[in-house]
Amino acid sequence: MRFLHTADWHLGRRLFGYDLYEEQRDAMRQLIEIAQEEKVDAVVVAGDLYDRQNPAEQAVAQLADFIQEINLELKLPLLMINGNHDSAVRLGVGNQWYQQTNFYLHTQLSQAFEPIEMENVQFFLLPYFELYEARQFFEDDQIRTLEQAITLVVEQMQKHFVAGKQHVLVAHFFAAGSQRSDSETTISVGGLDAVPINLLAPFDYVALGHVHNKDALQQKLVRYSGSLLKFSLSEAHQTKGVLIVDTDPQISVHFRPIKQLHEVQNIQGEFSDLTNNDYLRTHHVDQTAYTGIVLEDTNVISNASQYLRDKFPRFLMMSRAHGLATYTEKKITASQLQSPLKLLSDFYEDATQTTLSTAQKKVAENALKEADECDL
Amino acid sequence: MRFLHTADWHLGRRLFGYDLYEEQRDAMRQLIEIAQEEKVDAVVVAGDLYDRQNPAEQAVAQLADFIQEINLELKLPLLMINGNHDSAVRLGVGNQWYQQTNFYLHTQLSQAFEPIEMENVQFFLLPYFELYEARQFFEDDQIRTLEQAITLVVEQMQKHFVAGKQHVLVAHFFAAGSQRSDSETTISVGGLDAVPINLLAPFDYVALGHVHNKDALQQKLVRYSGSLLKFSLSEAHQTKGVLIVDTDPQISVHFRPIKQLHEVQNIQGEFSDLTNNDYLRTHHVDQTAYTGIVLEDTNVISNASQYLRDKFPRFLMMSRAHGLATYTEKKITASQLQSPLKLLSDFYEDATQTTLSTAQKKVAENALKEADECDL
Repeated sequence: MRFLHTADWHLGRRLFGYDLYEEQRDAMRQLIEIAQEEKVDAVVVAGDLYDRQNPAEQAVAQLADFIQEINLELKLPLLMINGNHDSAVRLGVGNQWYQQTNFYLHTQLSQAFEPIEMENVQFFLLPYFELYEARQFFEDDQIRTLEQAITLVVEQMQKHFVAGKQHVLVAHFFAAGSQRSDSETTISVGGLDAVPINLLAPFDYVALGHVHNKDALQQKLVRYSGSLLKFSLSEAHQTKGVLIVDTDPQISVHFRPIKQLHEVQNIQGEFSDLTNNDYLRTHHVDQTAYTGIVLEDTNVISNASQYLRDKFPRFLMMSRAHGLATYTEKKITASQLQSPLKLLSDFYEDATQTTLSTAQKKVAENALKEADECDL
Repeated sequence: MRFLHTADWHLGRRLFGYDLYEEQRDAMRQLIEIAQEEKVDAVVVAGDLYDRQNPAEQAVAQLADFIQEINLELKLPLLMINGNHDSAVRLGVGNQWYQQTNFYLHTQLSQAFEPIEMENVQFFLLPYFELYEARQFFEDDQIRTLEQAITLVVEQMQKHFVAGKQHVLVAHFFAAGSQRSDSETTISVGGLDAVPINLLAPFDYVALGHVHNKDALQQKLVRYSGSLLKFSLSEAHQTKGVLIVDTDPQISVHFRPIKQLHEVQNIQGEFSDLTNNDYLRTHHVDQTAYTGIVLEDTNVISNASQYLRDKFPRFLMMSRAHGLATYTEKKITASQLQSPLKLLSDFYEDATQTTLSTAQKKVAENALKEADECDL
């Protein structure tokens, strides 16, 4: 059989305050097109459907539309688990009904051990779980690390293995040796949360979610699909997409990219260039992308962010390649000391190269007056 | 056929801060027992499943368990609409799958016109909707009142009537002439939200939700089932329960009460009696009930609420039957005027019959000192 492996949709996510709804919709549409082109027999989603435990109505409606289209309209089997960003309770409502159309949604650890069989494959859907759930399920208070828990989980799963079939694990955790990026939320600390990949050896393929970079783990058959979208500036150079997994005669995997509706980019340059239309045009700068800007200038530039936002409607943030030029310390003069207002306006002039407006001066005067009168 | 008519579960509701989870569970359990005893063919829920648009996980899990038991385990058809307290989007997730087991959940106006047919009955499930939805659906910007909208809704439904069948409307609104109580939330103002009951004449039975008192509307075949629980002190004397509706040979309705796990009561008396164990025992006062207390005393009683809470673990609030005794106005003496602290402690003594403690005096002194020093 052939299935599509995806994860980390994070519906409802924002990027520096920008709503990614349109980007999500576009990526989902491409995912469906790929599933149809590749004629897959099932879609596997390895957790983090939503970006938060209690998603906004818009995200709830978006997921509902999408799972309806995949499972009810296209009649594709859907295998899904919750991730650390999802609420098992909220996401899990309805799962008893979903099974009737081959939509398997596991949100409780206890559901992980009954394999879903399709053709020659046994799928084990292991939802994201907390250690206390493993202690309860295995009635073992000694479970202190995810490694211990996963060891028991895999042992339990192996009891259900049918010889001659292929065994696929769907799970959501951090596999030891993966590179982290800054858009996943780290839940645990101190290395308790890393699963050694040798524990996963009994499986023919492990469809993972959690890490957003598909190349974070260099393993052939234990794979992160990565997210569909770039969720941070550090992911600007990653390629996002889904994995297509063939199981016959043996496991083989190929990657299908998802084009970003709006790219994420880091650009660097002089302020005068980056706000100059001719420069942007001749240098083929993508002004529609979500953009982080590194300025090479070292001088103070008034309202720089506002000017950059005018040129880049999806401007995210600005930083300096070489810092600000060291401010030459000036002696404070006697006349400044006698007039706090003069001290303030001289400083403002030094820092911004403009003088205080009449309105600004008025505000400053009033503030200084109040400070003077109520000297608590 | 025979169906059970219920509404206004308000899962997640609190009463003066008390969680009603156990009361809800107990009432649900009784509802299921009644459904089984009465051998009903379906359960009809006329809105307000949850108490809020975004219910807590606990309430979500409670509803999920309950609908699973009714529909999947007992295999009872379930006909349900959202009420004004529910989010149509959140509640509606999964509804496309639910239909496969005769669980019909309508949350969009557009779903209201396709009848659910069972035996000789056509059920029309009209979800709670906002006027803008009616304007969109009927493509008519002139719809300004719920009366206008319901007129069009009923006309549209009648086009789907099959002659010789009985027609049941399930809806969630305020029917003109009903008595309101203080535990429903009034959404609209100015009478726009009241539906004249003559509009409902085409139906053989109208299963309503919204009003929590089953007797609020004196109509034989247009009925509120009322809530399962008492949600305010003003409902202390109401009887809560569900309606059992027989359709054959013609509509007949009988009421089945739900016993409150803990009663809601108003009691009145002297403070000394109501905090006296012998008095409470000999007068058979239910100390386990959610209790509002009206004191007949007129004097100030220090920490009265705390003493009452000790006797009534579900104490809700206290009020006075005859107000407080008029405070005899005293002349302020010259020595009081010279010392704000003396003025304060004399007042405290008059009001509470106790003197300021050393710690209280210290706090007062400091506060007066600060006020004196920074006289802005």
